[in-house]
Formats: sequence, structure tokens, C-alpha cells
Amino acid sequence: MSDLPGIVITGASGRMGQMLIRIVHESGKARLVGAVERTGHDWIGRDLGEMMGGAANGVIVTDDPLEAFSGAQAVIDFTAPDATVAFAKLAAQARLTHVIGTTGMTEAHIAQLAPCARHAVIVRAGNMSLGVNLLTQLTKKVAQALDADWDIEVIEAHHNRKVDAPSGTALMLGEAAAEGRGIALTQNSESGRDGITGARSPGAIGFSAIRGGDIVGEHDVLFAGQGERLILRHVATDRAIFARGALKAALWGQDKAPGEYDMLDVLGL
Amino acid sequence: MSDLPGIVITGASGRMGQMLIRIVHESGKARLVGAVERTGHDWIGRDLGEMMGGAANGVIVTDDPLEAFSGAQAVIDFTAPDATVAFAKLAAQARLTHVIGTTGMTEAHIAQLAPCARHAVIVRAGNMSLGVNLLTQLTKKVAQALDADWDIEVIEAHHNRKVDAPSGTALMLGEAAAEGRGIALTQNSESGRDGITGARSPGAIGFSAIRGGDIVGEHDVLFAGQGERLILRHVATDRAIFARGALKAALWGQDKAPGEYDMLDVLGL
Amino acid sequence: MSDLPGIVITGASGRMGQMLIRIVHESGKARLVGAVERTGHDWIGRDLGEMMGGAANGVIVTDDPLEAFSGAQAVIDFTAPDATVAFAKLAAQARLTHVIGTTGMTEAHIAQLAPCARHAVIVRAGNMSLGVNLLTQLTKKVAQALDADWDIEVIEAHHNRKVDAPSGTALMLGEAAAEGRGIALTQNSESGRDGITGARSPGAIGFSAIRGGDIVGEHDVLFAGQGERLILRHVATDRAIFARGALKAALWGQDKAPGEYDMLDVLGL
Amino acid sequence: MSDLPGIVITGASGRMGQMLIRIVHESGKARLVGAVERTGHDWIGRDLGEMMGGAANGVIVTDDPLEAFSGAQAVIDFTAPDATVAFAKLAAQARLTHVIGTTGMTEAHIAQLAPCARHAVIVRAGNMSLGVNLLTQLTKKVAQALDADWDIEVIEAHHNRKVDAPSGTALMLGEAAAEGRGIALTQNSESGRDGITGARSPGAIGFSAIRGGDIVGEHDVLFAGQGERLILRHVATDRAIFARGALKAALWGQDKAPGEYDMLDVLGL
Repeated sequence: MSDLPGIVITGASGRMGQMLIRIVHESGKARLVGAVERTGHDWIGRDLGEMMGGAANGVIVTDDPLEAFSGAQAVIDFTAPDATVAFAKLAAQARLTHVIGTTGMTEAHIAQLAPCARHAVIVRAGNMSLGVNLLTQLTKKVAQALDADWDIEVIEAHHNRKVDAPSGTALMLGEAAAEGRGIALTQNSESGRDGITGARSPGAIGFSAIRGGDIVGEHDVLFAGQGERLILRHVATDRAIFARGALKAALWGQDKAPGEYDMLDVLGL
Repeated sequence: MSDLPGIVITGASGRMGQMLIRIVHESGKARLVGAVERTGHDWIGRDLGEMMGGAANGVIVTDDPLEAFSGAQAVIDFTAPDATVAFAKLAAQARLTHVIGTTGMTEAHIAQLAPCARHAVIVRAGNMSLGVNLLTQLTKKVAQALDADWDIEVIEAHHNRKVDAPSGTALMLGEAAAEGRGIALTQNSESGRDGITGARSPGAIGFSAIRGGDIVGEHDVLFAGQGERLILRHVATDRAIFARGALKAALWGQDKAPGEYDMLDVLGL
Repeated sequence: MSDLPGIVITGASGRMGQMLIRIVHESGKARLVGAVERTGHDWIGRDLGEMMGGAANGVIVTDDPLEAFSGAQAVIDFTAPDATVAFAKLAAQARLTHVIGTTGMTEAHIAQLAPCARHAVIVRAGNMSLGVNLLTQLTKKVAQALDADWDIEVIEAHHNRKVDAPSGTALMLGEAAAEGRGIALTQNSESGRDGITGARSPGAIGFSAIRGGDIVGEHDVLFAGQGERLILRHVATDRAIFARGALKAALWGQDKAPGEYDMLDVLGL
Repeated sequence: MSDLPGIVITGASGRMGQMLIRIVHESGKARLVGAVERTGHDWIGRDLGEMMGGAANGVIVTDDPLEAFSGAQAVIDFTAPDATVAFAKLAAQARLTHVIGTTGMTEAHIAQLAPCARHAVIVRAGNMSLGVNLLTQLTKKVAQALDADWDIEVIEAHHNRKVDAPSGTALMLGEAAAEGRGIALTQNSESGRDGITGARSPGAIGFSAIRGGDIVGEHDVLFAGQGERLILRHVATDRAIFARGALKAALWGQDKAPGEYDMLDVLGL
């Protein structure tokens, strides 16, 4: 048990933080050794297990990441861009694998990760699900293999509270398709069809956004030819998959050379 | 054989006309007794079978509908609004069942059918497929049965040459859903989602249009609740279904009282 | 708050019992007033909220259903056939609405409910999900509307621990299709296709069972004609829907005359 | 026009033969220069275009393949195993690309192709559709990438006259999945689920066969994990895709070294 890699979770009280804590705990493949929250948060100094509404587990929530990182092997981090950059520096000092699921990072943020990656493993991905990352890879390959007269459409469905369309993952899939086909997505995107649209532009990559109920996330990439169609489809039914992917990345990073990686590396694709 | 109802096809040389001729011929349930084209068309006075690239069948194409209608029991008509109104008057005189698949008819056109329907059966529908008409009816019933917190989405897919979105059939399904729920579609429609859309409007009926390849026509009506979804789906793979629906309507009309009917009457729904 | 109907949950410690307790609590439409477990269970005499790992809620778990039922308006019961029959008698005495989700009841068990239903409302269903019950009704209607040359197939998908195929719900859908078509399912069922099967039997109702991962439950009823298909599909993503359906039935029963009802009555179909 | 590769079709009067002739004719990428039928067939010596019910096209159907092959660049052959072996020898003599879609070939038949492939290009595949061949390749890759706790299911749907289950293509996909996972399909196949089956065998590859209407052919490969699923799906709506794949293979073979190839080579996968 004590040989299992020790994991720290940042943003421990958030929805994703709590999900990560539960998944690490249930996995049997890692030990939860630390939990970080921002200074002033009312969980600081309290027992993490109790804060989550269960029995005490001996992990005391801290606002001192350096303390939490010492004696750990990895940190999983779904927080905010500035916090993530700060954590990356500390993780590099401590030679921890830093798994980053934080969204909204700018080029400037990302540039600050490079020096850290000279000392430690960083795994960063916009979507930590194994299935979605595999789908992205497949989409690129199929777009490469098929002629441009196969029309490509990305169709996604999400819950009714989602405020943007298409989803970030749908755009990532569209980028993969465009890359496979050797075109720029920005010049070849067709979304929001409504009214007299005219015929479909040859070579376009189309997007549709379905919204309803509590759908976690579904993505279809349709390749429509003459007399046949190929559909690559991912269905997420539980947000825990993002936590599981992050844990897998943390374990994978244990024996890797310092550097920047993504989930395709973790999947061995 | 000679007891089978005699059918006349208008617009015989068109894509839909030829499809109707083939379906009537193959059905074994009716006889093809006449074929009408507009004055000056080069099929006039020629054998229909030969014109369609096969063996002669003894049906001579005519530009005189009155002559074609005499001795027939029904006319199937996928032409244009003005022509259809003229055919309706002649069909009423001859007491023929008039099956109308013509699209683009205005209120003014439709008003002129009423006097004809006092003398003969008229069956008119925007989509002659049995499946789509059934789907429309089901959509209304389900929208009635479920609370407004079930989100309704209509998703349609068609070939890449289609110039408008959503499809007319999708709008018909949306109307059926709105009617079932007791709301006006125009005030509760959400289509063309793209960019920062905000959360889904409660009670809205959403539309998505997928375009690709040679897809004949697919329509999904999604009812998305919490923890469950109901999907009503129609897939058309052959345009012949529209011709088969029209033939079914023509046969159904043989023993009915004069009046205006639609495919729901034919289906007994 | 005190005007809300009071609900008792039997089998409170089980997976479904705890789900029901949570759903009643979250609904804001009913009060949880009692929780029953079998004599000797270690939750007896303890606070229900604490037993479920949260804060105390003042409901003490009891092994005396009569005590629990007094002062309640409904009991929701997903236990075992013999227990359910005993609960039905007590619920009838107390004039409570008795919602029964118990499976595996024999004709003999069911016969014992009739005298109870002379005094109180009983709602019993094999599947409490609104969507599945609606799907059953739709399946019957469509089977009625379409000719026998539309082939009917029921396809279901469930998690990899399920030990029987097809699912009970798939069989219920098959029964509804057979009833709509006016045939007996037992003489017209085709399942487990494997090897040289010969062509599909005309008029048969086919079944397929997909097993994998943690799929909660998906059911498709396919009506396949020539050139078109109609698919009625239900997707369950959260077992809470069964609890929500039971609560809806309990609330619906409050102003109804004594008698035996099912979820179709609750849905108003 | 005369620079286009010349193609010969064997079995010209059959359903697939006529489809190939039409596709070659419409493609604008090849010339139809010969049509072979067996000795005694009533098309021999007649004009092919007229035999197919259209205008004469100057191609006279022959029972002498050697004559037909001279002056051609490729032969497309969907006939029977013995005939195909005989054609392979003649095609090798004439240095023609020989595209073989013939099914039911034994190991003994296949062994006789090897000497022919020393002199000419042979492309042979059980399914000539581009989409299905791509799907096979993807299936293998995904099975390789995912752990064995992702359950694999192959689901196929075909028309109601199909006499065997699962389809040959479904088995091919199952083989690809097994190969990717490094197991033997024969020891790990689960099909025809019906009754009390017990839980799904860990590592099994499951098969389901849906039959109805005039479905041309649909294949799903489902990878079901915890909280997510990946589905690779192919939909064929027109048998012409098999002819188009064969033509693509014939054109591809024009500048290749002699040898045995399959559709994966043609697709460049």
C-alpha cells in the first residue's frame, strides 16, 4: 500500500476536485497524500474526509502547496490558468508529475510551462477522457484516408445548461479532421445552419449542437460518402472518466523523462 | 386484372412522375391507365413505356387531362400549385380520387380545393411517407404526455445538395410537438446554434441540420429529460416510399365519401 | 411543508431504498416520514440520515410497518413479493397509496393484491420510468398502425453484469408489439440468432441483446419497411428515474379512487 | 477518352455484373471494353447495352475470356471460386490487374492465385467497400489501444432475406478486434444471447444480428468502458459502393508491381 504513488489534488473542494479525490481513493492504484485549497477557504486545516461528508481520512487540507507536494509523486490539477502556472513551478522543483486539466489557458500561460517541463513530467489535455482522445486520433486518420468528396460533419449533444456551441471537444475534433485533410478549419467550417443556406460547400466541415436534459456529452464525427457512411462516436455518461483519465496520466508519468506530454502519449497512440 | 383501379399520373416525365409509374406498375394493386404531360412536351403522343427506356406498354402520353381522367379511378399528382388546382377541378368532374403531393401551395391555392372536395376525394400531404406521418402523430402525443421540463429537439440529416434548413418535414415535426405542448412554434424555436448561445431556453424546441453525402432523409425527435431520453426516429432510404404512400392513398380513397383528407386519415390514425 | 404528502420507504437500506429516500428528499413535493427495514437489520432504531452517511434527519428506521404507515399518505415499495403482499394489507388498512416496484411477483402474489385495492390505491409496474412506459404505449400503437410486412425488432443494451437476455423491459415491449399486431408473442418471437438461421420469419418479432460496460439500459423498437424505418428508442442514464417515477405515482394516487393502476394510468395515456 | 484504362467485367449478366457495368460506365475514369459470360448464356454474341435494356453500346458479350482480356488493362470479377481461378491464369498471361470480389474461396483456391500474382496485380477482398475496410483497420487499432476491460460488441443489421448470422463482415470485424487485442476470436466469441446467459465473459467479443426490411448493411463496433463508450459505425445504403470499390482497385493496380493486394493497400492504410 505504501508503495503506491502518492497523489495531491489541487482545488480539492470543487466539483472536479472532489471527483478526483473519490476516484484516486477507489482506484487502489495510488494513495491520496495531500489536498490543496486557496488561502482563506474554510476547508483549510480540516480533515478532507469529513469535509466531503464522510469519515475522517487523515488528510488535512492545506493552502501550502509546497508542503503538500513534498513526499508526493504526482499532482492532479483542474484549477485556473494562473494557479496552474504557479503549481507547475513547484511541481518542477519537487520533480512531481503534473497532470493539468485546467481549461482557458492562453499561449502566455502555456509558454511558462516549458521551463518546468525540463525538470518534471507535465501531461496536459483539454479533455482527459481516453475515449475522446482516441476519437480525435481516429478522426485525423480517417480524414487523411478518405477523399474530399466524403463530407465531414461533427455533431455534439450536451445538457441544457451549456452556454456555448459547438463544444470545445467538437472543435478539437474538427481541427483533427482539418489537419488530416490538410486544410484550415477556419476557412472550411460550416455551423449554425438555418434558413436558405444554399447547398453544402464542398470540403466544408459542418457542426451541429444538440442541447437537452442532462446529457453529459456525446460526439459524432460523420464521414458521408456516396452510398455509404462512416461514423465515429463517443458517448460520455459519467464525468468520472475525466478524473480516471487524469489518474491514468499521473501513473503513466512516474517513469517518464521530463517533458510536455498529452493524452495521446499516455494512450500510446 | 381489369378490376384493379385505374390510375393516371400527371407530370409523367419528371423524376417523381417516373417513380410513380414504376411503383404503380410493380404494385399489382392498380392499373396505369393514363399519363399526362404539359402541351408541347416531346413525350406527348408517344408510348410511355418506350419513353422511359423500356418496352412499349400501350399507354400514350397526352396533354389532355380530361381524356386521361375518363375511365380512371384516381390521379396522382406531384406537379406545381396552379396545375394542381386545374387538375382538381377536372378530377372533381370525373369523380376521381385526387392524390396531391405538390409542394409550395399557398392558402389561395388550397382554398380552391374545397369546392372540388364536395364532389370527390382529395388526399393531400407534404410528405407521403407512411413512416413520417406516423412519426408526426407520435411526436404530438409524446409532447402532450410529457412535462415541459423534457427538452424537445428535432434533428434532421439530408444530402449535400439540399439548400434549406431545417427541412420542411423537420418543421412539420416541430409544429406537431408545439401543438402537443400547447405552445406556438414561432415563439419557441431555437435553431442555428453557434457561438455563445447562453443556456437552452426552457420550453424551446430546437432544430439541427446535418448535411452530407447522398442521405435521403433522416429525422429524429429527441425528448430529453433528467436521467432518460426518448427518441422517435425515421430513416428514409429510398424515395420510392413517397410514391408508395401516394398509391396507398389512391387505393384508400376508392370507397370514401367526398372530402379533404390527409395521410393520417389514410393511415387510420 | 407540513402539507406535503408523507411518504414511507420500505427496504430503506437497499440500493433502491436509498435512491428513493434521496429522490423524495430532493423533490420538494413530499416529506419522508418513515423508513422500514426487516427485523434484526442493524439500521433499526437508528437515525436514517446518519445511516446513509450524512446528517441526522429525525426519521428513525423501524421494523414495525404499521407504526410507520400511520400518519403517512403513501408507501413506496421495491422489496420482495412476500413482503410486498404483507405491506399491501397494512397499506389498505391505513388507506395509503401503495406504489409497488417489486419484481418477480407470481400470479398468486398478484391475486392477493385485489382485495387490498378495494380499500386503497395500488400502482404497480415492472418499470417505473416514464419514458419506458410511454415507449410501451407507442410501440403498441405503431404495431397496430403498420402492416405485418414491417419487420419488428427489439434491441436492448445493458451493463456486462446482467445475467438474462432479452431484458424484462424488452419482453414487455415485444408483448406490446404483439398485442398491437394481434398476435401471440410466444409463437412469433425470434431471438439468439446465430449461424445458418434461414431468412427472417414473416411476422416475427426479433430480439437482440447487447452487453457492455456500465450501460444503464437502452431499448430500441425498430419497425423496418421497404425504403424506410421507424425507430422508437429509450435511453436510461440514471437509475434515479425509476425512483422519480415511483414518487410521481405516489403523488398521483393521492386523490384517486381505490383500485389497481399502472404507470400508464399515472401518465394519463 | 481512349487513354482511359480498359475494363472487362465477368459474370456480366448477374446483379453484381450489371452494377459493375453501370458504375464503370458512369465513372468517366475507365472504358468498358469487354463483358464475359459462361458458354451457352443467351447474352453471348449480343450487344451488352441492349441486353441491359438500354441503347446498344458496341460491347459484344463473349464466352472467350482470352479474347476479351486482350487489349484490356483490368478485369473485375465477382463470379465463383473455380471460374475466378481460371480467370486469374488468363489475366496473368495478359498482365491485367485482376480485381476479385468472389466469395466462398477456399484455401485451395487461394493457393492457386499465388503463381498468377508473380506476373500481374491481384486485388482480393471480402468486402470492397472503402468504408468497411477502413472500419476494419480502425477496429484493430482501437482494440489495441484500449485495455481488456473495455467490452467489445459487434452489432450488424441486414435485410430480412439474409440467411446467416453474424454477417461475414461482422466476423471480419470481430477478427480485427481479436487480432488487435492479441486473442483468438474462436475462444472469445459470444453470440446468440438468449435466456439465462450469466454475466458477460470478461474479454469476450459479442455479436448481435438485427434483421428487417431492406437494410443494405450496417455494422457497429462498440467499445464499452466505465462511464464512456466508443462506437465505430458503417452504414451502407447502396450496393453500388462495392462496385465503386472494385473500380478504384482496378485503377489503383495500373502502376503497381505484380503481387497479391487487398483493399487496405488500395486505401493506403
